Amino acid sequence: MVGTRPIRPDGVDKVTGRALYGSDIRLTGTLTGKVLRSPHAHARIRSIDVSRALALSGVKAVVTGKDLPQAAPDEVIDLGEGAGKVKYLRDNILATDKVLYEGHAVAAVAATSAAVADAALKLIAVDYEPLPAVTDVRKAMQPEAPSLHGTLTPDAAPNISGQVHHRLGDPEAGFAAADVIVENEFTTETVHQGYVEPHVATAMWNADGQLTIWDTTQGAFSVREQCAEILSHPVSQIRVVPTEIGGGFGGKINVYLEPVAALLSRQSGQPVKIAMTRAEVFRSSGPAPASWVRIKIGATRAGRITAAEAEFAFEAGAYPGDPCWVAAICVFAAYEIPNGRIDGFGVVLNKPSSAAYRAPGAPQVAFAAEQMVDELAERLNLDPIDFRLLNSAREGTVRIDGGAHGGIGSIECLEAARAHPHYHAPLGRRENPDVSPQPHPTTAQPPPQGGREVDPSPSTGEGDAVAGGVVPSAEASSSLRRGRGVANGFWVNAGMQSSCTISVSADGSVHLVEGSTDIGGTRAAIAMQAAEILGLEAHEVKPVVADTDSIGFTSLTGGSRTAFATGIAAIEAAREVVRQMKERAAQRWELDPEEVDFAKGVFTAATNPTRRLTFKELATQLEKTGGPITGSANVDPQGRGVAFATCIADVEVDIETGKVGVLRFTVVQDAGKAVHPSYVEGQMQGGAVQGIGWALSEEYVMDEKGHMLNPSFLDYRMPTALDVPMIDTVIVEVPNPGHPFGVRGVGEVPIVAPAAAIANALHRALGGVRLTRLPMNPRTVLEATGLIDR
Amino acid sequence: MVGTRPIRPDGVDKVTGRALYGSDIRLTGTLTGKVLRSPHAHARIRSIDVSRALALSGVKAVVTGKDLPQAAPDEVIDLGEGAGKVKYLRDNILATDKVLYEGHAVAAVAATSAAVADAALKLIAVDYEPLPAVTDVRKAMQPEAPSLHGTLTPDAAPNISGQVHHRLGDPEAGFAAADVIVENEFTTETVHQGYVEPHVATAMWNADGQLTIWDTTQGAFSVREQCAEILSHPVSQIRVVPTEIGGGFGGKINVYLEPVAALLSRQSGQPVKIAMTRAEVFRSSGPAPASWVRIKIGATRAGRITAAEAEFAFEAGAYPGDPCWVAAICVFAAYEIPNGRIDGFGVVLNKPSSAAYRAPGAPQVAFAAEQMVDELAERLNLDPIDFRLLNSAREGTVRIDGGAHGGIGSIECLEAARAHPHYHAPLGRRENPDVSPQPHPTTAQPPPQGGREVDPSPSTGEGDAVAGGVVPSAEASSSLRRGRGVANGFWVNAGMQSSCTISVSADGSVHLVEGSTDIGGTRAAIAMQAAEILGLEAHEVKPVVADTDSIGFTSLTGGSRTAFATGIAAIEAAREVVRQMKERAAQRWELDPEEVDFAKGVFTAATNPTRRLTFKELATQLEKTGGPITGSANVDPQGRGVAFATCIADVEVDIETGKVGVLRFTVVQDAGKAVHPSYVEGQMQGGAVQGIGWALSEEYVMDEKGHMLNPSFLDYRMPTALDVPMIDTVIVEVPNPGHPFGVRGVGEVPIVAPAAAIANALHRALGGVRLTRLPMNPRTVLEATGLIDR
Repeated sequence: MVGTRPIRPDGVDKVTGRALYGSDIRLTGTLTGKVLRSPHAHARIRSIDVSRALALSGVKAVVTGKDLPQAAPDEVIDLGEGAGKVKYLRDNILATDKVLYEGHAVAAVAATSAAVADAALKLIAVDYEPLPAVTDVRKAMQPEAPSLHGTLTPDAAPNISGQVHHRLGDPEAGFAAADVIVENEFTTETVHQGYVEPHVATAMWNADGQLTIWDTTQGAFSVREQCAEILSHPVSQIRVVPTEIGGGFGGKINVYLEPVAALLSRQSGQPVKIAMTRAEVFRSSGPAPASWVRIKIGATRAGRITAAEAEFAFEAGAYPGDPCWVAAICVFAAYEIPNGRIDGFGVVLNKPSSAAYRAPGAPQVAFAAEQMVDELAERLNLDPIDFRLLNSAREGTVRIDGGAHGGIGSIECLEAARAHPHYHAPLGRRENPDVSPQPHPTTAQPPPQGGREVDPSPSTGEGDAVAGGVVPSAEASSSLRRGRGVANGFWVNAGMQSSCTISVSADGSVHLVEGSTDIGGTRAAIAMQAAEILGLEAHEVKPVVADTDSIGFTSLTGGSRTAFATGIAAIEAAREVVRQMKERAAQRWELDPEEVDFAKGVFTAATNPTRRLTFKELATQLEKTGGPITGSANVDPQGRGVAFATCIADVEVDIETGKVGVLRFTVVQDAGKAVHPSYVEGQMQGGAVQGIGWALSEEYVMDEKGHMLNPSFLDYRMPTALDVPMIDTVIVEVPNPGHPFGVRGVGEVPIVAPAAAIANALHRALGGVRLTRLPMNPRTVLEATGLIDR
Repeated sequence: MVGTRPIRPDGVDKVTGRALYGSDIRLTGTLTGKVLRSPHAHARIRSIDVSRALALSGVKAVVTGKDLPQAAPDEVIDLGEGAGKVKYLRDNILATDKVLYEGHAVAAVAATSAAVADAALKLIAVDYEPLPAVTDVRKAMQPEAPSLHGTLTPDAAPNISGQVHHRLGDPEAGFAAADVIVENEFTTETVHQGYVEPHVATAMWNADGQLTIWDTTQGAFSVREQCAEILSHPVSQIRVVPTEIGGGFGGKINVYLEPVAALLSRQSGQPVKIAMTRAEVFRSSGPAPASWVRIKIGATRAGRITAAEAEFAFEAGAYPGDPCWVAAICVFAAYEIPNGRIDGFGVVLNKPSSAAYRAPGAPQVAFAAEQMVDELAERLNLDPIDFRLLNSAREGTVRIDGGAHGGIGSIECLEAARAHPHYHAPLGRRENPDVSPQPHPTTAQPPPQGGREVDPSPSTGEGDAVAGGVVPSAEASSSLRRGRGVANGFWVNAGMQSSCTISVSADGSVHLVEGSTDIGGTRAAIAMQAAEILGLEAHEVKPVVADTDSIGFTSLTGGSRTAFATGIAAIEAAREVVRQMKERAAQRWELDPEEVDFAKGVFTAATNPTRRLTFKELATQLEKTGGPITGSANVDPQGRGVAFATCIADVEVDIETGKVGVLRFTVVQDAGKAVHPSYVEGQMQGGAVQGIGWALSEEYVMDEKGHMLNPSFLDYRMPTALDVPMIDTVIVEVPNPGHPFGVRGVGEVPIVAPAAAIANALHRALGGVRLTRLPMNPRTVLEATGLIDR
């Protein structure tokens, strides 16, 4: 079962439009909620007058930050991917003393229609005292920068909200021992996860204090916890019902609308639904942080890295909270480096409070570090994959952050990439670029051999793409230049808590209840792991994603943890079902339960294997042998397996216009064990496409006052299907010893390497010009090649 | 916790109208389904032409019985309260060859509006060949009666569909030993459960075969099973989502609309919702059977019953299925009778297929048997309670059906009734008749002493009401006469399968998921039993009634089984939670789990009781000690405890008009242990009121062709609040040894005795006239007293 590709259980509902998403929730008497947002990036709120809005006919409730209970200033809540102060969470959803970014919520109304709600917002008078804003991470770090919160960290500039410092070995000696040292600085821009479905929440606060929230979220229990803290309301009185989710990527973990809808419902006594517009999503939800990164790496002439150094600063956005700590783990994690130093800083500034985005922090540092690794390979005249293999991390490698790798698939990914036809093919599009080379690409262990199977045509004279250097386009006379680049990606993955309950039906099918929002097919991947244990077909295990009242605590879907951790919960629950079923078989055969064996869906008497009952046969007899059977399990597995992915990118750049196109792209990734390979491939392709968007076109364009100028999908340019080639995938399977089937998380790591792989390809296409800034759009390219001034 | 009266968790939702009932389900694109029903009580269907209906604009689907898969003729399905042939179930929801009652479904349409659906029904041409109908149970038993199905039972008249025969000891010898023998025949009419909420079902049949049904039902799993059988569709592909239920009383177990809505949805590809009108509920759902009962009892002059004989016939309605078997258990179950004979018959006839109604079969036979017991007491000049006590069943009593009583509360109920102020008060209304004598009546064990506490006024000269005989009304000159009667009720109760899952939240509250439709507050009663084990407050255990995909198999809410059996599941699940919590405490204290004690919500180290953690304190540490905790349990408990209830009724009858009023009514009932006494009292009061309605006014009035003439709440006369006094309640608690807290079922037994108690009271009020026919409406009374001809 595990490793096959059954039809997804939620497929028909989703393609027919019957699946319920956040905006599909319509309770009788629901009011429309709308949020008034700051036009200033930084301002003091002198006063808010809601009286005229309240007086408007059809307005049922108006709330401001003063309606939220005052949280203890230092109370901390663990959101599953880091901890945050309740005060910040609260101020972020409804500002009190200051607004800290354009789009910061200051008040909200609930009215009988959207038109009335809009009119009411216009009647709320907010008296602002505008303050100077800062929206650049390096500028915000300066002691003289406008301060958002006053000093946050002793002995640091006021806006520095987080720091991480690691040192391994003797960095100075390491660099001294190097024959070649490369160093450069890089910047990346604020980008958004760009999920299709905007935030939308519906809340009903009953007169008895029971609060129900219907929500599109990655973690119903996390929403429950945040709302409990923000509203000072017991978790036992809050039920969060997760809907299907139209994408999250880390951006649907923090609450924005939920407590506001709850307050409005409490005030009005009616259900209240609030939905963001796309512009609100951009301006007021949490994007991924922009960054500044400096990387320095030294190596011997023999190609061994002797020392590495990283310094970086990440935007936290308006409130503390940044991925420095995990960026520090990731930045050099792919390599065995004896000496090193890592210094990271989180910085608050006048942008929306940043949120997680698929492998938070890793793409930014990989963009920098993987270019420097490539540059070293080039200087040493080594194949970039060979150089990476020479220095690859392996089991036991101690990272600069002090952690040590367990069983990992870094070398296997690199070897599979090196062996892949793409790496040996002529530069450019592959034949049949619109389809995957295999309709159902099989997993690769060992990696495919004989490099040219897919594209056996002889070299077109474009030279060996891998050797680097400028490669002229097929149209030699044109301004188009091509190049190939590779890069490594690493992600830590997560474990965390999960619950699962499995009940046996009389027809031998089972129902599986779990609490993980289904992202990328996790409900199927979880059910398949239970099916494997029970010896059932995929369709015989029906998964249900339950609300917070109906399943045990389950951490959010994030950190690439779900197929791993909730999968283990499903395995444990299935094993408990088998244990109880053995008791029934034993009862029937008058044996001890220990004398009953179970394998491949069949119970047999250990003493007499001809006595056998299939799972289905025994299931039909439950009523006669003591009643139904339910197995439940709760886990907090510690054996997460980290993830590696290697990308190969062929690009084409027009040196006159600066436009970059991706011609061919291959992702090689260690899944540990791909439960449902199609879903794994989907994650690899989706991560790669998001990485390509981040690399080439996506960014928050902001004016000097901190206003976002492109808050729409028209102007915030995400890749469309026309912008990317078919992303080819190779699944490598180096089992994670911490999971019964070897499963590792697969969702995040594919976004890590693409920007670096494309930058490395462009470096070759542009004859050695190094792009140090994201996005690598025409302006970045032309500035780098000197065609236009910076 | 058990035995207290916390506020119900579903209260606010229900009083504010937010609770979702069947008709509140509105899916996008839902079509309106309507059912075409037979105008004939008995007819052959020559043909059905749906072509004109299908051609009508807005009609999306039309189905007839031919669209249902052909079931194997002898396939049997267990519905939880008896078994039935799939063929009958199927033919009942859509007739094929014959219609067997007025209102029998013959076709159904789904259309874009109710108006279009109504118009479409008119366009369906059914060619009927009318057949003679029979609607009287005694007539239907005759060999020459119109036959519905041909011969159903070998060597019996064609319409006899079920038989039960029991014999204990030597009945002939028993009667020979008797000094006094009474014998009479009784009839009861067809009555309806009269739930407020009509049947309504919404179905969505997805293209991948996944069928979801939102339903108002007593048993979601039972609906799933019936639909699976009728539709030949695997249970694993059917999800039944139970809504709140606006009453069921046994009538919401069988499916009527669900498979039809499913078929229409499959044909149209859209969700389909069908709701019955009140007239359809009366004509086409399952009423309680009319009956004919003959009772003969003999006793010695010393007051000991020597023999008893019962012969009865119950309507099955259109298809086989009647409560003979359980009526045979109940008829004499309250007494120790050494010799006896019971012969029962189920009879098909041209009325809607009968269904369960609160203690199915028991009220009919109690109406007869308890009058004969009373008559014996009168003949022997014994107090009716004293006579019953003298002959009361007790632990070990072997009934005529062969079963033996376990620990029962028959004597305790009778003694509590005898000691109750009502039994000694002057005839008539008690003071403050509009309120319960105690705002929260306490349970009675031992029964209250000193009979005249409530009404200490001296006798008004009306004489001792108990002694029997005609008692003139207070207005001596008027035509009003008063009397007091008592009667015993017995019900078997049920066990059956239940599942429960309990998850612990970090704040020490728990969530409890169960699969029993909440009738009469069962979700609270179940949660309270878990709270008792866990040492929590009621509001700290949040119950959820889940759908069939989200909880283990759970039999229907019926047979007064839910607080008992699902309660045991909750207790077991809570114990499993405690077991796992002990492991965590042990881990923290570095002890073995066996060295941890738990009592009253506190874990202590056995070796050192100063080491203690409350449930709440330990709950906050789950994340650090291995993750969340879920306990689940599945049970099929065999230790159900039977129920007794004794009623005392004061009535007033106008001998000129025949109108009967109930002046005062007290129910004494053994609850075993009242989990939530208010709910138990509610069941006692509700059962008594339904019994009063059955006794005095309710009946299907049918013409000779089998047409129901009173299919509305205006003409089918159920008691209103103005028709009944406050029903006083006394809860007796004789623990059921089969339940950890002693819980017995309480929902059904209070309906058993009222009609007999009222008949016994009328017997006295009318100076010895015995009413042998239900309802005891003016016509029955005047016929009995000879004022009008029969």
